[in-house]
Amino acid sequence: MNKACERFRPIWIDHQSDVVKVIDQRALPHEQIDMELNSVEQVIFAIKEMVVRGAPLIGVTGAYGIFVALKNDKYNGDETYIKNEAKKIINARPTAVNLSWGVNRMLTAVLSEKNSFQRVDIARQVAGEIAEEEVENSKNIGQHGVKLIEEIAREKPGKPVNILTHCNAGSLACIEYGTATAPIYAAWEMGINVHVWVDETRPLNQGARLTAWELGKSGVPHTVITDNAGGHLMQHNMVDMVIVGTDRSTYTGDVANKIGTYLKALAAKDNNIPFYVALPSSTFDWTIRDGVADIPIEVRDPDEVRYIPGAPKSHDHLLMPENSPAANYAFDVTPARLVTAFITERGVCRANEADVKQLFPEKK
Amino acid sequence: MNKACERFRPIWIDHQSDVVKVIDQRALPHEQIDMELNSVEQVIFAIKEMVVRGAPLIGVTGAYGIFVALKNDKYNGDETYIKNEAKKIINARPTAVNLSWGVNRMLTAVLSEKNSFQRVDIARQVAGEIAEEEVENSKNIGQHGVKLIEEIAREKPGKPVNILTHCNAGSLACIEYGTATAPIYAAWEMGINVHVWVDETRPLNQGARLTAWELGKSGVPHTVITDNAGGHLMQHNMVDMVIVGTDRSTYTGDVANKIGTYLKALAAKDNNIPFYVALPSSTFDWTIRDGVADIPIEVRDPDEVRYIPGAPKSHDHLLMPENSPAANYAFDVTPARLVTAFITERGVCRANEADVKQLFPEKK
Repeated sequence: MNKACERFRPIWIDHQSDVVKVIDQRALPHEQIDMELNSVEQVIFAIKEMVVRGAPLIGVTGAYGIFVALKNDKYNGDETYIKNEAKKIINARPTAVNLSWGVNRMLTAVLSEKNSFQRVDIARQVAGEIAEEEVENSKNIGQHGVKLIEEIAREKPGKPVNILTHCNAGSLACIEYGTATAPIYAAWEMGINVHVWVDETRPLNQGARLTAWELGKSGVPHTVITDNAGGHLMQHNMVDMVIVGTDRSTYTGDVANKIGTYLKALAAKDNNIPFYVALPSSTFDWTIRDGVADIPIEVRDPDEVRYIPGAPKSHDHLLMPENSPAANYAFDVTPARLVTAFITERGVCRANEADVKQLFPEKK
Repeated sequence: MNKACERFRPIWIDHQSDVVKVIDQRALPHEQIDMELNSVEQVIFAIKEMVVRGAPLIGVTGAYGIFVALKNDKYNGDETYIKNEAKKIINARPTAVNLSWGVNRMLTAVLSEKNSFQRVDIARQVAGEIAEEEVENSKNIGQHGVKLIEEIAREKPGKPVNILTHCNAGSLACIEYGTATAPIYAAWEMGINVHVWVDETRPLNQGARLTAWELGKSGVPHTVITDNAGGHLMQHNMVDMVIVGTDRSTYTGDVANKIGTYLKALAAKDNNIPFYVALPSSTFDWTIRDGVADIPIEVRDPDEVRYIPGAPKSHDHLLMPENSPAANYAFDVTPARLVTAFITERGVCRANEADVKQLFPEKK
């Protein structure tokens, strides 16, 4: 048994001031700075500029955004106001489906009440419930996923189970435990010998900055690698399994996740290495059949590729010639055929419509 | 017709001082600094620290290293001295086969002469010949490869041919024209509408720093992308072909190249996009059958992954937590089954033993 992994949340209500607070993930790993979300504009800024990021956390932040909107309601309960604010929040980022899921669930809850004071209370409560559900989802993903790690550990006694992950689908992307990291933390706490290959994850380096920071806090052995390295490691039996998160997965098994995930899935397939996607049900899109064709892929500011941000901004480091343009596609879609299985809060299932709907029969 | 692409060399002899000079590629694209190579130690430093890099250029630098060694010969023509210096140069980097090829060719030439003054002249001459041969090789690779680009251009009139490349296999990696870039420069000069997706190429960013700089000098349209992006672009018909260089290719068709090349080859295969490898015959290894198992892969300093170098060094930018380890595998091997064809100075051939040996019958 190792010591319990460190628990922390990237979003919470300061109960004394009733203010929503988040960790500003842009400053990690070198500084830990909290930020208050006092207006819908601040909520949108936090989502757009990736102060918060990761599908489940974006969903919870969007939910708290409705709470913030209602606290600031000057229109005396006019539904048009809150619906407009909801629309603005949903439009902050296009790919993670949790955002519209979280915001719409809040809208349904608060609009069932006419009294605007009551609405604020309902919003605080429901947003909190959504957050707690995601914690519970992550915990269950961990319990289901850890069995897959245990199986591999049994096959190579005394040797570490090498797990590769891309981007950050950890506590920082969720509320606690994470999605992709939940089985890893569970394995570590059980005393299983694990080692994590952390993809740097250009351009915003969520792997090098956030996943490495999280794993380090809990003492989980890990090594940061460039996004280019995973294929070589897999060719040489240095990876036993891949676990990633997702920003939106179709009920047919296609997986949108941080750009570059598709390349790792191809390499895993080519080397017979299992490729798992860990997600709570809030990340399923129950309307889209063909993920590659139809999941909207966010295109972000090319300067995120061109510069390594410095502090202060005048220390930004330009990585290429001044006049060279860059492009910044934020996600790609891994087709279902490359996914070994989904790890959900209800269990593990193959990435196809029949198996997903068997686990979530209410969606049939 | 576009204007002729800019010609420049990354290595040359300053004929007034008889000193070997190179462009210090570590300082590009923000500064262009020349460096003198006056001792074997400086030659080895330049190769190891990647002042010069790229298989053909490493080969030519190694060849000039023998010239430098002979100029500094204090042992009056003792063969042990020069053989030792040769061995030290060959050991500077393990993966590019051109290094031992160039150095051994020089050894054979200079040891056929007993007079040590004559040896210096022979060395200067043969190193120059090797350099000129590589220029000629690159030019011919361009002429053979441009036909592949022309074919695609004919199929999509009025639209750009989108070519993805990884790392830098341009003039800076060779002597002129490059290997992977030679067909691109030839196409551009013929007025073919080309656009190059330049993989950033972590950790040393040879794509963002060097390929973008080179293409920009010649006005070739290009866009820098993260190494993660290529798969997504290929899924969405935004890449017509891939052309890369190689540090060592087996006569059986396996291709060692900058780490991450294998991932692009997998994505090209998955999307039916041709994947070409451009190389002069000096980059073939005629002794190794199984590239994945037997080509030595250099492991470099993890700090190349952990930091973005600043100027001065105290401005180095740490990309991850202080205590997180990193790993830095410099190359990977793309199996022959993923390579559409080789583009060599003698023509285009499929990446298998029979076809390679048909083009190079003297190696049978």
